[in-house]
Amino acid sequence: MKILHRFTRFLKNLSIPQGRKTAPDAISKPKDTQAPHHDVAAPLVVRQNEEHDCAAYTDLKKQFRDIGRIGAVAETLGRDFLTAMPEGAWKSRLSQIAYMHRLMHEKMTDRTIAGQIDRAKSHLENNNDNWDEWDRANLQEIERSHRRAACIDGELTETEARLAYEGRRHHRNMLAAGDWMQAREFLSRTIDMKCRVADATCRATGKNSAYDVLLDEFMPGVSQGDLEGWFKTIKTGFDKILPQALEKQSKESEPLPITDYYPAKAQMWLNRALLKAIDFDFERGGLYETGHNPVEGGTPDDTRLVISTADTSNFMDSLKSTLHEGGHGLYIQGLPRKTWRYQPVAQDMGAAMQESQALLIDMIVGRSPAFFEFLSPRMEGLFHGLKNPVLSARNLYKLRTQVKPTMVRRKADEITYFYHILHRFRLERDLIGRRLKVADLPEAWNAGMEDLLGVQPQSYAEGCLQDVHWFVGKFGYFPSYATGHMLAAQQFAALSKDIPNIDAQIASGDFLPLTNWLRENIHQQGRVKDMDTLMKNATGSNITPKHLLSHIENRYVRAA
Amino acid sequence: MKILHRFTRFLKNLSIPQGRKTAPDAISKPKDTQAPHHDVAAPLVVRQNEEHDCAAYTDLKKQFRDIGRIGAVAETLGRDFLTAMPEGAWKSRLSQIAYMHRLMHEKMTDRTIAGQIDRAKSHLENNNDNWDEWDRANLQEIERSHRRAACIDGELTETEARLAYEGRRHHRNMLAAGDWMQAREFLSRTIDMKCRVADATCRATGKNSAYDVLLDEFMPGVSQGDLEGWFKTIKTGFDKILPQALEKQSKESEPLPITDYYPAKAQMWLNRALLKAIDFDFERGGLYETGHNPVEGGTPDDTRLVISTADTSNFMDSLKSTLHEGGHGLYIQGLPRKTWRYQPVAQDMGAAMQESQALLIDMIVGRSPAFFEFLSPRMEGLFHGLKNPVLSARNLYKLRTQVKPTMVRRKADEITYFYHILHRFRLERDLIGRRLKVADLPEAWNAGMEDLLGVQPQSYAEGCLQDVHWFVGKFGYFPSYATGHMLAAQQFAALSKDIPNIDAQIASGDFLPLTNWLRENIHQQGRVKDMDTLMKNATGSNITPKHLLSHIENRYVRAA
Repeated sequence: MKILHRFTRFLKNLSIPQGRKTAPDAISKPKDTQAPHHDVAAPLVVRQNEEHDCAAYTDLKKQFRDIGRIGAVAETLGRDFLTAMPEGAWKSRLSQIAYMHRLMHEKMTDRTIAGQIDRAKSHLENNNDNWDEWDRANLQEIERSHRRAACIDGELTETEARLAYEGRRHHRNMLAAGDWMQAREFLSRTIDMKCRVADATCRATGKNSAYDVLLDEFMPGVSQGDLEGWFKTIKTGFDKILPQALEKQSKESEPLPITDYYPAKAQMWLNRALLKAIDFDFERGGLYETGHNPVEGGTPDDTRLVISTADTSNFMDSLKSTLHEGGHGLYIQGLPRKTWRYQPVAQDMGAAMQESQALLIDMIVGRSPAFFEFLSPRMEGLFHGLKNPVLSARNLYKLRTQVKPTMVRRKADEITYFYHILHRFRLERDLIGRRLKVADLPEAWNAGMEDLLGVQPQSYAEGCLQDVHWFVGKFGYFPSYATGHMLAAQQFAALSKDIPNIDAQIASGDFLPLTNWLRENIHQQGRVKDMDTLMKNATGSNITPKHLLSHIENRYVRAA
Repeated sequence: MKILHRFTRFLKNLSIPQGRKTAPDAISKPKDTQAPHHDVAAPLVVRQNEEHDCAAYTDLKKQFRDIGRIGAVAETLGRDFLTAMPEGAWKSRLSQIAYMHRLMHEKMTDRTIAGQIDRAKSHLENNNDNWDEWDRANLQEIERSHRRAACIDGELTETEARLAYEGRRHHRNMLAAGDWMQAREFLSRTIDMKCRVADATCRATGKNSAYDVLLDEFMPGVSQGDLEGWFKTIKTGFDKILPQALEKQSKESEPLPITDYYPAKAQMWLNRALLKAIDFDFERGGLYETGHNPVEGGTPDDTRLVISTADTSNFMDSLKSTLHEGGHGLYIQGLPRKTWRYQPVAQDMGAAMQESQALLIDMIVGRSPAFFEFLSPRMEGLFHGLKNPVLSARNLYKLRTQVKPTMVRRKADEITYFYHILHRFRLERDLIGRRLKVADLPEAWNAGMEDLLGVQPQSYAEGCLQDVHWFVGKFGYFPSYATGHMLAAQQFAALSKDIPNIDAQIASGDFLPLTNWLRENIHQQGRVKDMDTLMKNATGSNITPKHLLSHIENRYVRAA
């Protein structure tokens, strides 16, 4: 094997092409001037491949590296499915993706794993000093992944994985046709399947709420009860703010509408330029278009943001999608890839934290007056509209912050968005809890919209068929948006204290301090802490809705 | 599991989107009017998933289906590597591709496989009637794959797989820099590795020629001795034809050179249109551009042809690449995917047969007067040159069939191309046989070029660094080109008899009879026969160089 080893080493030495700089993980030194909660930094050595004192743990790391690799492969197959794949390949591709998930499941539930976990845990108990915070968290996440996987069988895992992509296709067709009867049957079976997954998990883990089990995938440690508490506080606040915001708005002149022609190429240039401005690394990712719904995803080495094809009559939609997916992208790229790469501890904290990063860029920053101060003059040049009042900072800001109760979540403003989420949270909780029948969903949907926002969908397409989530089996995902919005507001409040001139920086297009704050406090943390501790370290307090309330009140009621 | 099964079935029923037609494998019925050698047609049922009387064989099919899936995944990762992947992802992507190959190797060498093969073989012996030609060939290919894989270990497999993509990058850099010293070290180690692979295979299989073992990957059943025999005959013939062709050419006026500007978009439209004309299925494939070398590849469901980015000063290069890769693409798409899908018997017959399909379209058809009769008027329209003499059928034909000994294989004409291949065949045979040292390669290269074609490379880039093959470990591939050219001429001679008005059809742009002949006689056969039998069935005679000689003599010496 000597020659082979020399050869492998030789390949390795050649691996860095001339002229390419491979930046190390952007690990900042603790700043003396910062609050004491900024004390965690990812370690500088490659921990994934490090021999640990505990052989069983070293072996677990190796096995989870391989599982992580298969996961990255499945992710790439999925990006390709949505962007470059010829249509006729979709059936075989689905089987390939599903098979990758079966392989991961096989490896995760391998009968040796449980014993290794036990040995590692007992080693940890007896040799506490040899286990730092990251190792401990990694072992915990390994156990969590193993236990979740062990609750269900390989066939069910394959079915779930197929659904994640197959459902996108079916939803697209059913939405276009407004075909509720087909959707109803599809949803019934999907819910049956998710309930089987959740029930099996409950039985195996001793939990008793199916919905809590599903939530756990998207926000580890957060229960239905937590959400009900937060959402109640937000609703009480928003119920007061919404009429005030509408009244304030009615006293102002209407913004000028966007009516011009905005070439798709120019839009895509703008979108890419803004991603560069927030320091998204195009060396390790890109922006792609799709005929499907936009999605977040990819891996830290290959983060592909996928948005809908640019609409030439309105640049705002692709801009919004880009900022949203860009927030996700920064999070993915900022994970501790060089140190922990494929290990469970190096993954993101789930959908709620993901959405906080997306909504911080998309809603908190991307709809601020400062952002449009920066954007407006560039848009005048790009879209050939020197001094065009439609493109003025004030007009763009007004357009983007107009409040109006409407039917469609994806087009909702920053206030009514919450009601859309609350509505879906209540419905899916009751669907999974078997208190609401799928057959009764359209009626319940329309009644809820009437009750919460006083609007009535005129079709399934603007009613219960509008979102892809349930059709790909994502029950428990929706609350991540409202939770994410809440986390984003809390993070922005904290970073505004750490970076006092943040507004001026945004207005001048300098997003780097913002991005670096997120990197240090959120992205580089991976899963080393639970969500509440992470937020406490980053912001100085536990998770709380109060910053979302004050952000919304400031922007929509108090601001001039 | 009842609900789950219902659900899976439900998904399956939904699987064919409305309005999409999924054509069955184009399986032709045996024609009464045809010669008796056209008696093989792929069966119409899905054989891959069929329960066989022999349980061990059913199980082997299942395992090789999974291996085939992983292979398809690795193929997609590779296409993506060359086209869409962000540059910074390349290192992790290499590890993922290599890991897929390790997984395949693990499954192929699983200790249960050998026993299953033995049981299946003994079942075959005792129940001959239950095994049709396809099952027998499939079992034979399963055994062959298993034996080859078992000769080497997983680590070496990973190293080989990495090299296939890593070598492309390094070759690109070393070629651009003309860096022989780096190339020399790289090649030495690559040859060491290939020799280790070949020696281990010799030891395990009782063979005694390392080069034969390497050849076997590209042309199963063909030995160095076979090649030497064929090539001697071809050389003897070509040595006579070449001076005659040059003399004939010297008496004619020179063709008008291509000097205009040919927009890349127009070229790519033309390339795609021609692929459609030869019936390449864009529903199951596409044409992509790359900064790397062009490659054939993909799977029958997802066949991506990858060519270099169009050169706006000469449309001929991208046209040639498209026809060449298009020939590969037709072969891949025409394999018996619906019946045998991922099974070894459904794979192509290796590089020589692959190249025959590429060169039949690229050289035999794509440089014929009839082809340019079809192309010329369309080019006048596309490139805005009504009655432009450069674009006349005669001029294009003359340009494409000009004979001139030069240094670079990829730009060589149809006659001197053979000498380039013969040259490389001799060198790699001696490199692998340890009779030629890598350090002496440049000298041997230049001496051979002088000897065979009377030209002397002025740089490494137009000498021994020009080709990527050795740098990705493909020793034994080069002879596939000359062998493929020979097979192509033999196939074209046979199909010209079966389709008497073939020239008129090509001139009118009707390529379907040609493509269908290839589908029926070559593509749909997969690996059900050995190469010689396949050729005999398709053309009525064993493999012979005589059709290549008469084709070349007709086109370059006899034609008006």
